[in-house]
Amino acid sequence: MTPKQNFYRKGTTMANEVYNFNAGPAVLPKPVMLKAQEEFVNYHGCGYGIIEESHRAKGFDEVIQAAEANLRKLMNISDDYEVLFLQGGASLQFAMVPMNIAIPGKKIGFCDTGEWSHKALKEAKIQGNDIDLIFDGTEDKFRNIGNAAAWKIDQNDAYVHICSNNTIYGTEYQNYPETGDVPLVADMSSDIMSRVFDMNKFGIVFAGAQKNMGPSGVALVVIRKDLADRCPETVPTMLRYSTHIKSKSLFNTPNTFGIYIIRLVTDWMLENGGVPAIQAINERKAAKLYAAIDNSNFFRGTCGKADRSKMNVCFRIGEGDEELEKKFVAEAKAAGLIGLKGHRAVGGLRASIYNAMPEAGIDTLISFMDSFAKSN
Amino acid sequence: MTPKQNFYRKGTTMANEVYNFNAGPAVLPKPVMLKAQEEFVNYHGCGYGIIEESHRAKGFDEVIQAAEANLRKLMNISDDYEVLFLQGGASLQFAMVPMNIAIPGKKIGFCDTGEWSHKALKEAKIQGNDIDLIFDGTEDKFRNIGNAAAWKIDQNDAYVHICSNNTIYGTEYQNYPETGDVPLVADMSSDIMSRVFDMNKFGIVFAGAQKNMGPSGVALVVIRKDLADRCPETVPTMLRYSTHIKSKSLFNTPNTFGIYIIRLVTDWMLENGGVPAIQAINERKAAKLYAAIDNSNFFRGTCGKADRSKMNVCFRIGEGDEELEKKFVAEAKAAGLIGLKGHRAVGGLRASIYNAMPEAGIDTLISFMDSFAKSN
Repeated sequence: MTPKQNFYRKGTTMANEVYNFNAGPAVLPKPVMLKAQEEFVNYHGCGYGIIEESHRAKGFDEVIQAAEANLRKLMNISDDYEVLFLQGGASLQFAMVPMNIAIPGKKIGFCDTGEWSHKALKEAKIQGNDIDLIFDGTEDKFRNIGNAAAWKIDQNDAYVHICSNNTIYGTEYQNYPETGDVPLVADMSSDIMSRVFDMNKFGIVFAGAQKNMGPSGVALVVIRKDLADRCPETVPTMLRYSTHIKSKSLFNTPNTFGIYIIRLVTDWMLENGGVPAIQAINERKAAKLYAAIDNSNFFRGTCGKADRSKMNVCFRIGEGDEELEKKFVAEAKAAGLIGLKGHRAVGGLRASIYNAMPEAGIDTLISFMDSFAKSN
Repeated sequence: MTPKQNFYRKGTTMANEVYNFNAGPAVLPKPVMLKAQEEFVNYHGCGYGIIEESHRAKGFDEVIQAAEANLRKLMNISDDYEVLFLQGGASLQFAMVPMNIAIPGKKIGFCDTGEWSHKALKEAKIQGNDIDLIFDGTEDKFRNIGNAAAWKIDQNDAYVHICSNNTIYGTEYQNYPETGDVPLVADMSSDIMSRVFDMNKFGIVFAGAQKNMGPSGVALVVIRKDLADRCPETVPTMLRYSTHIKSKSLFNTPNTFGIYIIRLVTDWMLENGGVPAIQAINERKAAKLYAAIDNSNFFRGTCGKADRSKMNVCFRIGEGDEELEKKFVAEAKAAGLIGLKGHRAVGGLRASIYNAMPEAGIDTLISFMDSFAKSN
């Protein structure tokens, strides 16, 4: 059971505290990690781990119910909505949403603000749907979103799809389209529960858990109950929302350990003041980091200031000095600042600063950036 | 972070050693659990957990490659096959297999030996496929399978589907159908790597990990490369095997922690002599437990002796004394023997004795059964 290789120690002068800026899977709250470790082999004194527990056992039932109750509290989810724990990530939702709620003969509205909304659009097309392209950020290279509340929505669309935060380009909706009676569907994978929002404006909100909620392998789906009825009978059982609604996410074995971690993360959030308190910290963290970028002559932000993401801070050195950026990533890693490389689609640098990233991590990053700029 | 309720301690007189006979999620090898706990918050000294690691990082790359290499070794998987780590469990495979490898105008052969093959058959029908019912166990209430090698296979079938071990009814194929040029597809969720088999006889083998391989939330798919080419372009990207083959299971974020546990479990298997050595132990464990049932006048096995599963031992008290069975389950739990209730579809008692169940667990169960019989 000893590791054959060790990528981590090689060439590092590891600091005492390590800060993990990966875009997802990402840092989890330290108290959650310690709690999960403590009870890993002996959950609540039962003699084995929750990872080994039956999904039909009372012990797991308590976990999944608590996770749902916590999420309902944190996001003010009313009884008009179902809360589901599915598998396959946001990418499977890109297929499931049109399978379930497209309407023959109607277009689907897409707001294309980056790679993830683009992939979702592609999936809707594969299923033969016509697209109403409400916003197209491609020419602008996805640097801005603008005033989404002013976008004109065709009331004949079957639904409208947005991706609330764009991890790759570092933009985030500052307000949402006003879709009237047309259901608004949001992929909130990378900013869910990072800020207060009104669930009642949405038909479906979904999110891969691995950024703000837990580990990879669980997709949260919050769906307005009436929408599940749209699904035709030809859709496979596992891909119908109605299947998972009827069985309370236990139609088959869910990712039980993932749901357990979500329960711990949401416990932690509630103990720390819920979304409003965490939003205030997130705003402070992002403001500090963007100020450090803007006040330097060395770094520069990559997207429009008005639409900057509070979760994924994308920046470059100069006009995009790839050699120096490579050096930055390597030296940061050696200093215990992990995962600062930008997404392979755009290059550059990126700090993902989700809920679980402590403010001290931002401070450490800023002082590292400062000294790197001085010596380069 | 303190638990509000504790289902586990209530009314129990917990023994020192607890044995978990749950059907899945199920017991994991103790050395795996201890190793995962030890490095949970600080993986190989990197300062954070593997559960927090990016799926694109070198550290996780080493994990997924080792998991695949281990599985290839343990099951002698040749280069003609791809090894995929997907999500959605076997239940999503019930839909994905026909989506990917059904052939218009051809029937799909099904061998119906219990609930899971039945569900798979239903999914193939939902997609509009005609069924060639090769074996129908319904009238016999799924108590027997018989000599599968003698079944006549129509060489015009697109493929033939079997479920190698039936967790609910406690039966297991003793040999497999001879399908000639027709690809044989096997759901091996509950007996994969419990015994030696010849992968080259199969077109696809899939298995939910949560019985013999790891935690819930990962489905292993081993697929003969040429079969992936059958998939029509109208199938959603995430539901095509070719997508996951091209991207080495990293098209989107997989269940990284689940794959890490599979790596540890397969390390453990290799260190303990691989499948042949574990098969010998499994045979001894099952033989002991069935002998205890057969030699008692109190318990009786529920299915044909020739087809008994070595993974899920199903039995009853007398002709099915539900009150006494309830008492048995409760008293066993109090004695540290967990999860002995039969599946809700059939009732009775069931001991799931997967690879990770130590022989001492069987011995403890047998002596508990003995004393329960004497005092009732």
